[in-house]
Amino acid sequence: MLEIIRPTLVIDKKVCLQNIERMAKKAAENNLHFRPHFKTHQSAKIGEWFKLFGVKAITVSSVQMAEYFAAHGWKDITIAFPVNILEIKNINRLASKIKMGITVENIEAARILAEKAIYPLSIWIKIDTGYNRTGIDASDTFLIDSVIHHISLGQNLVFKGFLTHTGQTYQTNSTGEIFTAHFDALLKLKSLKNRYSSTYNNVEISMGDTPAATICTNFSGVDEIRPGNFVFYDVMQQNLGVCSFDDIAVRMVCPVVAKHASRNEVVIHGGAVHFSKDEVRNTDGKKMFGRIVINRNGEKILLDTLNYLSKLSQEHGILKVAQSQMGNFKVGDLVEILPVHSCLTANLMSHYRTAEGDLIEMMPRY
Amino acid sequence: MLEIIRPTLVIDKKVCLQNIERMAKKAAENNLHFRPHFKTHQSAKIGEWFKLFGVKAITVSSVQMAEYFAAHGWKDITIAFPVNILEIKNINRLASKIKMGITVENIEAARILAEKAIYPLSIWIKIDTGYNRTGIDASDTFLIDSVIHHISLGQNLVFKGFLTHTGQTYQTNSTGEIFTAHFDALLKLKSLKNRYSSTYNNVEISMGDTPAATICTNFSGVDEIRPGNFVFYDVMQQNLGVCSFDDIAVRMVCPVVAKHASRNEVVIHGGAVHFSKDEVRNTDGKKMFGRIVINRNGEKILLDTLNYLSKLSQEHGILKVAQSQMGNFKVGDLVEILPVHSCLTANLMSHYRTAEGDLIEMMPRY
Repeated sequence: MLEIIRPTLVIDKKVCLQNIERMAKKAAENNLHFRPHFKTHQSAKIGEWFKLFGVKAITVSSVQMAEYFAAHGWKDITIAFPVNILEIKNINRLASKIKMGITVENIEAARILAEKAIYPLSIWIKIDTGYNRTGIDASDTFLIDSVIHHISLGQNLVFKGFLTHTGQTYQTNSTGEIFTAHFDALLKLKSLKNRYSSTYNNVEISMGDTPAATICTNFSGVDEIRPGNFVFYDVMQQNLGVCSFDDIAVRMVCPVVAKHASRNEVVIHGGAVHFSKDEVRNTDGKKMFGRIVINRNGEKILLDTLNYLSKLSQEHGILKVAQSQMGNFKVGDLVEILPVHSCLTANLMSHYRTAEGDLIEMMPRY
Repeated sequence: MLEIIRPTLVIDKKVCLQNIERMAKKAAENNLHFRPHFKTHQSAKIGEWFKLFGVKAITVSSVQMAEYFAAHGWKDITIAFPVNILEIKNINRLASKIKMGITVENIEAARILAEKAIYPLSIWIKIDTGYNRTGIDASDTFLIDSVIHHISLGQNLVFKGFLTHTGQTYQTNSTGEIFTAHFDALLKLKSLKNRYSSTYNNVEISMGDTPAATICTNFSGVDEIRPGNFVFYDVMQQNLGVCSFDDIAVRMVCPVVAKHASRNEVVIHGGAVHFSKDEVRNTDGKKMFGRIVINRNGEKILLDTLNYLSKLSQEHGILKVAQSQMGNFKVGDLVEILPVHSCLTANLMSHYRTAEGDLIEMMPRY
């Protein structure tokens, strides 16, 4: 059994495996290539769990992360981030050993890749389907034509298709809006696929977000999905209506170090260096950095949203607690916090622990 | 020379040494014991730089950090965080080797320490002087009496004095407010010192924040200061009026990966996993996660606050850039970002680089 004395990121392996299995099945049922994003867990060991469900190809968000997973035996990796051409030497080194997918969204990068790639690279064009973070606007076929032209000049570049991250599904207020955002993105990508399929063979579509991959059912014309967060889910996904609390596979277990009854607050060791500062709002419109699970006589109880992780400084976390609940917290207790954004929370830690105490290491930090 | 191809935290050693020297001198001139907080830099190597200015005692924020610095030769460490009694074994192990200061703010912890400490521990009572994060309210002498009583029952516990973190200086809108907050905290602590000096010998006062330690001049009755952030400073401190840009000793150097002229945005590789999500507001009231320094013909130019790091996702950073400045950014360029909160930014990285390319390692992540 696991003995915890410090903030510890505990993973429920069973829930995690269920999440992976469910998504792998959904991909198979919809004839979708499943290329999960590994930026959420960043762990070679958890990567192995995906292999149990037939996963052979993955997505990462940096060259460094590609290097880590390639070193752990992954042979087919897409970097779903606009290519950083300063890393061309490292990209070439990776491509000499494994199958590499690269994301391009401008002429400058396409031109440099065409000139400097010395091993085959699959090139995805990043399309902005409404998130407005990065990518070529789906309607800008003039620029898309030009980027494809530059790709075609590179003897080691193979134009693979169109890739998007429908991150706007995270900015929704109902699951209906997630369906709409997903369908809108899908239509834009299908229109591009139709247009370019007359000139190029096997133009593919790759979509990426966990909300749509989890709850949407229409993947007509889509070839690949790249969700990442679903491996753990979190309070943000639960808040969006994408998962239930039972699907959340990680929690930070934190020691209680102080109580301030006059303001209904409990202080835990567990701060911004453990959780990160992504937030959702509780039912009162207050910033919430995590939900609280207490252990009462061996039973785990999720407290309602009037009890929440309300403030974070470097090492301190402040729980706002309903007066009726104050008696459930004692100095020296452990409380469990469901994180708001599991990707950023996991990124801050060096390892997970299973309930049995097993250590699961992550990739080294930047 | 340093060749940068990925997000890299670059430290200006000269500026850093100046910051340390200035604070060490100020402490000496005011007869203050200088016990710098090492949670900002978290690096044994940077710790060595403090020794050049006579520093022999330090502050940390966790038992784990105490263990790291003790392993690197530090013999006098205060953990300025309400003691986590679950770590009593580790605290005893540390106290068997070095001089340990522990922070207490409630009876439960005092009682357990009294019972379980097997080597001498210096005990500081944490006082809340208005930040309302943790600590005993300065006016609650009933509780203070009781905690001191429990401390006195522990044969290995020595009551040392009163410690505060005047974090309210970070919530100010003018340097005048910083002076007021500091003076108010100082009066509260002096009143406690006077009250308890009649009963106990050598009751000390320890104060902690960088804003007041940097700009305030009245330290009458104070025995010790524990600032941390001053070693690097950051945009938050500059924004508070505490330091100038020339005092900021760290910057994140990031590759430009895309430009979106239609919305005056530049995309960098540099996201929440590099900067953390602490923010300040720019002159337009917009969230700002960092200030931008560009390199034009070898000259470094700090852009005004209409150019700023405006959004962060896991690996992406979005720079909002004035139209007139867009021409100064090219895909494949490097830009320098001054971080908003250097403590949390440094915490995300595993090392610093000096301009000469030297590697400066940090403590392992959690």
